[in-house]
Amino acid sequence: MTTIHPFDEATALTALGDGRFTGRTSPAYANMAGPFGGVTAATLLRAALAHPERRGDPVALTANFCAAIATGDFEVEARLLRGGKSTQHWQVELRQEGIGVAASALIICGEPRQTWSHRPVSAPAAPPAEAVEAWSMPGLPAWIGAYDFRFVTGAPNWRGKSGDAPQSAQSLLWLRDAPPRPLDHLSLAALSDAFFIRLFQVRGSMVPVGTVTLSTYFFADEASLARQGDRPLLGTADAKIFSGGFFDQTAELWADDGKLLATSTQVVWYKE
Amino acid sequence: MTTIHPFDEATALTALGDGRFTGRTSPAYANMAGPFGGVTAATLLRAALAHPERRGDPVALTANFCAAIATGDFEVEARLLRGGKSTQHWQVELRQEGIGVAASALIICGEPRQTWSHRPVSAPAAPPAEAVEAWSMPGLPAWIGAYDFRFVTGAPNWRGKSGDAPQSAQSLLWLRDAPPRPLDHLSLAALSDAFFIRLFQVRGSMVPVGTVTLSTYFFADEASLARQGDRPLLGTADAKIFSGGFFDQTAELWADDGKLLATSTQVVWYKE
Repeated sequence: MTTIHPFDEATALTALGDGRFTGRTSPAYANMAGPFGGVTAATLLRAALAHPERRGDPVALTANFCAAIATGDFEVEARLLRGGKSTQHWQVELRQEGIGVAASALIICGEPRQTWSHRPVSAPAAPPAEAVEAWSMPGLPAWIGAYDFRFVTGAPNWRGKSGDAPQSAQSLLWLRDAPPRPLDHLSLAALSDAFFIRLFQVRGSMVPVGTVTLSTYFFADEASLARQGDRPLLGTADAKIFSGGFFDQTAELWADDGKLLATSTQVVWYKE
Repeated sequence: MTTIHPFDEATALTALGDGRFTGRTSPAYANMAGPFGGVTAATLLRAALAHPERRGDPVALTANFCAAIATGDFEVEARLLRGGKSTQHWQVELRQEGIGVAASALIICGEPRQTWSHRPVSAPAAPPAEAVEAWSMPGLPAWIGAYDFRFVTGAPNWRGKSGDAPQSAQSLLWLRDAPPRPLDHLSLAALSDAFFIRLFQVRGSMVPVGTVTLSTYFFADEASLARQGDRPLLGTADAKIFSGGFFDQTAELWADDGKLLATSTQVVWYKE
């Protein structure tokens, strides 16, 4: 008997034909209002990857979160906007009865190629994952339990009082799916959103927020991800600006051999 | 008599109703194959901003470049995916006869609000724009003449031979429209793409490339941009990785009072 990993259950889609699929929210990845955004992004990506016309690996995924997704069923539709020699452009929408479009994505796939390569940036120094204590905190949304977090620096400390001086926006940590799951582009997409909200980090308290857009860029083919397997990734998160009710949140995900696998930027709405 | 700025001419749209517009490519912003991507992104943004239902300022713009745009007419269609209390989600497509979808965008607008703000990152140090020499190079595509570039570091040096050691991917420069034009979100979107291709910078030579996706994030309302007027912006560009035929290119645009106005990330396809 094969057991399906909770992540694959949460992002599972049933094909209806013509690029249309149905899916269902999963309690294992519930966030405060609707599912964890990383799982929604991965579900949108899965629709494009599951389309019979898809060729190549994901290169870029932009997921815009338009409305809170209600617990229950949803429909996803993937449309090939353009298929060129080297890249494919996809548009994907997630809709729910009574809500309309709840999430929309633009996805680019590209055939992996052996080309000139250059990596001007190196992975940050960190002790090995097994030398860093696993982090946990009671009373948090379910999705946080779907990951194993080991903070080298910038562990959550959300007990600040308003008026405290802003803390650093940076975190450095090892992270992976819990239970462990071999890495692929779907889980990498979700992991790129698994860094805690930088606003909580900087202010030391949880305040109302919502990610409006998440772009993840993939710099690894399937074979590289398979080599990483289910071992922890090294991740960094940071932010440059909080202004006018929106802030940016950037992240990098590194393989344990020091190769950069993905980068991402999201913009998050905050209330006050 | 009012003279229209070439940028406004290049991004001009004629409304057909129902969110549909027509436009036309401009020789002043021609690139090697089709228009300068920054002007295409700005044209997509203009369609959303010109829609009668639009409310608020641009917060995020992701433009995916699906096919080379041919010289001549095109049609742009803006669709409101979702309008919430604090944000609007738009989808915009640019189509051309015989080509189909040539560019596709997801755009978020938000009502400007006075909220808690924090700017953990400061503008890089640079001499004032007027103390830096204007840069020029003969024989380049037309769009480059539509900007005034003053490089503090990392000026283009595209005469390398293959086999040379990679150069730094970083540039620091002052830049603005030429002729000068008061800054708005449209020109800021285009400026976010006006940094030269990092691959040329690193390899010291021009090789076949094409941007596949450009995301620009705006952290300034109309009033802040009006205060900046037509004075040069301080810009930085960098890259983290060139691998598998794609590289990332990040940029920041700063007002001359040191405030961060926009950040952007693009992914660029390269041949070899």
